Amino acid sequence: MDKQIRIGIMGYGNIGKAVELALGQNPDMILAGIFTRRDPAGIVTKSGITKVFSLSEAEQHINNIDVAILCGGSATDLPEQGPVFASLFNTVDSYDTHAKIPEYYAVVDKAARKAGKTSIISTGWDPGLFSLLRVIEESVLPQGEAYTFWGPGVSQGHSDAIRRIAGVNDARQYTIPIENAVERVRSGEMPELSTKEKHLRDCYVVAEEGADLARIEEEIKTMPNYFADYETNVTFINREEMDAKHAAMPHGGFVMRTGETPDNSRHIIEFGLKLDSNPAFTGSVLVAYARAAYRLSREGRIGAKTVFDIAPAYLSLRLPEELRRDQL
Amino acid sequence: MDKQIRIGIMGYGNIGKAVELALGQNPDMILAGIFTRRDPAGIVTKSGITKVFSLSEAEQHINNIDVAILCGGSATDLPEQGPVFASLFNTVDSYDTHAKIPEYYAVVDKAARKAGKTSIISTGWDPGLFSLLRVIEESVLPQGEAYTFWGPGVSQGHSDAIRRIAGVNDARQYTIPIENAVERVRSGEMPELSTKEKHLRDCYVVAEEGADLARIEEEIKTMPNYFADYETNVTFINREEMDAKHAAMPHGGFVMRTGETPDNSRHIIEFGLKLDSNPAFTGSVLVAYARAAYRLSREGRIGAKTVFDIAPAYLSLRLPEELRRDQL
Repeated sequence: MDKQIRIGIMGYGNIGKAVELALGQNPDMILAGIFTRRDPAGIVTKSGITKVFSLSEAEQHINNIDVAILCGGSATDLPEQGPVFASLFNTVDSYDTHAKIPEYYAVVDKAARKAGKTSIISTGWDPGLFSLLRVIEESVLPQGEAYTFWGPGVSQGHSDAIRRIAGVNDARQYTIPIENAVERVRSGEMPELSTKEKHLRDCYVVAEEGADLARIEEEIKTMPNYFADYETNVTFINREEMDAKHAAMPHGGFVMRTGETPDNSRHIIEFGLKLDSNPAFTGSVLVAYARAAYRLSREGRIGAKTVFDIAPAYLSLRLPEELRRDQL
Repeated sequence: MDKQIRIGIMGYGNIGKAVELALGQNPDMILAGIFTRRDPAGIVTKSGITKVFSLSEAEQHINNIDVAILCGGSATDLPEQGPVFASLFNTVDSYDTHAKIPEYYAVVDKAARKAGKTSIISTGWDPGLFSLLRVIEESVLPQGEAYTFWGPGVSQGHSDAIRRIAGVNDARQYTIPIENAVERVRSGEMPELSTKEKHLRDCYVVAEEGADLARIEEEIKTMPNYFADYETNVTFINREEMDAKHAAMPHGGFVMRTGETPDNSRHIIEFGLKLDSNPAFTGSVLVAYARAAYRLSREGRIGAKTVFDIAPAYLSLRLPEELRRDQL
């Protein structure tokens, strides 16, 4: 084997921990260090690795890291860290603020090009694998309708929105695809469906003692943008039930396209994910794209890239001739 | 728009006709000519184009064709035509003899490199999109089990095998995924399944008058390799029913992977196709890869390529910045 790809993990939350563990399934990689904003001395790592450093020292590790996997959040961490780390390392991230991707791409591209580095942005599954499938499906069936369904799965943003309501102690919001809408698409019907016709919102809420449940339910169901336009269910539960039944972070969804070829035949393409753990899967995808970032950088292909720019062979542990023989 | 990509269609059977029609859905391409082994004067084309030439004259059209789409069969046409046309044109084909792909890749690669051309081999859906998904799924979930199911759909090879039995006038064989096996995989169970445990074979046969139906059924069900190991149903029908109900060539299937990340969570990825017409969809995929061949050749990336080597952006009609803004 060539020398192992040395990975730095930048940020040690759910995704950082998932990346750390996923590296154990990828023998061509080795963990070079975990970088955190917290006190490194206080971190007990999942894998037992003791190379934990302060994020602010990252620059001192330039020569020990082939690819930095950025595991911070999209709201505030990545907009700042993305261009900074792209000027020091080859990077991979899961930046997922869809509306701001062009802007993020531009600043990361500029930093990476200036430093001669390769940065793959917005990997994971949406953006990421779902985006990839949207483009492939549209390319092979240019006349048609595309559909993305999310869930069943926990939406962090919607859960947080409920937690901000007075009298709410904790909340978990599941986005659920509406089965009838999925079936209509699968039948080849090509219905026009808005996001709210495709999903319902199922909320589990722990209220503070003595809180007015009717008012909380009303505030949730009428919250603009988040819930007002959706079919929303609210169920009050106690702390024990929340901890016992709602600790996991499952997610998934479908990317579907129905298209017609000019002979009037109809074709349906469906890509689906059913994930026990959203962060664990996202971490595993980040690691595959870190391999691609390393290989691209070795070929001198610098600047910001997205999943659209990565040939699938770059993701694989296997040699090209092996892929052609066994997987084609 | 840049100048249109000029496409030559080499071979005018089911796939050639599908490619011809599919070009109408891709405004960046134009049909430069159809090349046939038959007498060009006798060909009435689907699109009404009159540029029909003899396959043997193809070389005279070198300067009029940006990409030649090879629409011959994998058994005898492509092993001969692949390297010949790769030395004249950028090419795309749907070579599908899985066991001989490495050998075919080698001869096409040699011819294309010598001529400075780009040749994308073995596109379509299997090999093709299914291969792509096998590699992506394995790369993001390295620990797991992969499953490919085919059908429901017509298998040309199995239909032909039945037609060779004495007393058989016509036959159509459908490969059907066994629902229970699909469900076991979808449940995340990770069963070990052989091909025959995953598929059953459903045969519709028109017998010659006075033929011994019991003998024909027995010969089908005991035919080695094709049927002996499978659950096989045989139904005798008349010519009218064959023409009325079995003229279409539907196909499809699933590529699934169940994998575990090191936190012991389980994830299921599923990619499925449901195609009204196998040749129509295959033609549409060939056209998307012709776009990629053209773009790669303009970048000087010569030699044989497979779907594993093609970044998804190369397949798309849209500009990279449009893809990032709308599809990521």
